[in-house]
Amino acid sequence: MEQVEFLNGKTRLYGIVGDPIEQVRSPEMVTWEMHQRPMNAVLVPMHVREQDFDDVLPRLMQLHNLDGLIFTIPFKAKAIVLAQALGAQALQVGAINALARRGDQWHGEIFDGLGCVESFRRRGLSFKDKRVMLIGQGGAGSAIGAAIAAEHPALIRLFDQDTERSERLADLFGRVSPDTRVEISPPSIDGIDILLNACPVGMLDDARLPFPVSTLPSSLIVFDAIVKPEQTPLLALAQSCGCTVVRGREMMLGQISKIVDFFNGQN
Amino acid sequence: MEQVEFLNGKTRLYGIVGDPIEQVRSPEMVTWEMHQRPMNAVLVPMHVREQDFDDVLPRLMQLHNLDGLIFTIPFKAKAIVLAQALGAQALQVGAINALARRGDQWHGEIFDGLGCVESFRRRGLSFKDKRVMLIGQGGAGSAIGAAIAAEHPALIRLFDQDTERSERLADLFGRVSPDTRVEISPPSIDGIDILLNACPVGMLDDARLPFPVSTLPSSLIVFDAIVKPEQTPLLALAQSCGCTVVRGREMMLGQISKIVDFFNGQN
Repeated sequence: MEQVEFLNGKTRLYGIVGDPIEQVRSPEMVTWEMHQRPMNAVLVPMHVREQDFDDVLPRLMQLHNLDGLIFTIPFKAKAIVLAQALGAQALQVGAINALARRGDQWHGEIFDGLGCVESFRRRGLSFKDKRVMLIGQGGAGSAIGAAIAAEHPALIRLFDQDTERSERLADLFGRVSPDTRVEISPPSIDGIDILLNACPVGMLDDARLPFPVSTLPSSLIVFDAIVKPEQTPLLALAQSCGCTVVRGREMMLGQISKIVDFFNGQN
Repeated sequence: MEQVEFLNGKTRLYGIVGDPIEQVRSPEMVTWEMHQRPMNAVLVPMHVREQDFDDVLPRLMQLHNLDGLIFTIPFKAKAIVLAQALGAQALQVGAINALARRGDQWHGEIFDGLGCVESFRRRGLSFKDKRVMLIGQGGAGSAIGAAIAAEHPALIRLFDQDTERSERLADLFGRVSPDTRVEISPPSIDGIDILLNACPVGMLDDARLPFPVSTLPSSLIVFDAIVKPEQTPLLALAQSCGCTVVRGREMMLGQISKIVDFFNGQN
């Protein structure tokens, strides 16, 4: 038969919306995850220009076989207005990166942080009662912080060049996990079990570490949210010191799994 | 790598728009044809409810990586208003079933008839100077008639329950192929080289022939536009009489090939 196996009239449609769109990895990775479940579904790139977003999105969401959307740059902040209901993380962070159709409503949630927690869970690691240093409280960093708050660590130490960002996340910990001790201070691993980098230092060809350090204790768990390169300068140092290393790619896979659960109505 | 091979951020998007949508075969068949070329593209089902068409389609066409659309029931007549330029067949028939992006414009064309002519060409058969009986001048039948007119047969004999339809197609032959002799008469194969059925008699469980006949000359070429069943009562009779038989499925494959050419800017 002259036909492909992965598409037919019953295939449910999902999209990733961004501008530009060519760099996204969700089409091949999320579709793979959906096919594992198995779902008769594909996630395709949808290139919406920034100036067209307000006009196009509400109409696009009228496609009757469209069941979910992922949002990437520059739409993560804007997309929240499209949701009729918000998940716990989205309420705390004030942004979404995914929408799922639930009957007549669209539900929004943000999965960056949940993906980080999921990547730890898959390694048998937990944030509960741990002492955590989080560097960077931008978009990804604040989502990671919100997800960790729900895991109730013993201590969260926050650092961002912009102290206001750290203070917002400190407030959130105060509400979500009042027993967590919160510190805002320059990066340091003194008394820390888990070091998380969510700032862009070390991305692509950037050979810098996110803070000056020459050695790490082998008991430290080191995570870097950066996906490219897989081996950041921080992770290279951590690996050479015998630390447990969790990579940005693992967070991405954890996030994809959580988003497909969400698309399936499982969270 | 946990990813599928047939989708990525650079994949160009095509859709088939209809209501309902689950029965369509274009997603698996057109995508297969595009992958043969090869194109990094998929054609996905897009379920637009009839009442949403006018609102949704112009916005959908703003998706910057959407390069083409196919229209099926109930949108074939309506879709023509979305085109900024029309192909020769669309101008004659007054309907389109495909749109392709050409720079800033959308070009429309109808491929039902061109698919029939292409299926004959692939068999080494031609309509030029032949004597043709065409039964049925509805949507598919009038498109087939218009495509055959451009091939300049010697004779076209037309029959439809609705004589006005036959007269419209007779007019079109007068303009496009003035040397073709045109007759409007009840179905008969006297002096006919090619018999084409484009009426729904014989579809699905309908065991009837489109006109009363018990034997056919083996020199006759017999075509049936019906896709389900593949072996219509008419084609079964033709095959038992030793006629050359061309099937609806061949027209569909011919049409798909022509539509992908169109999407590629080749016609």
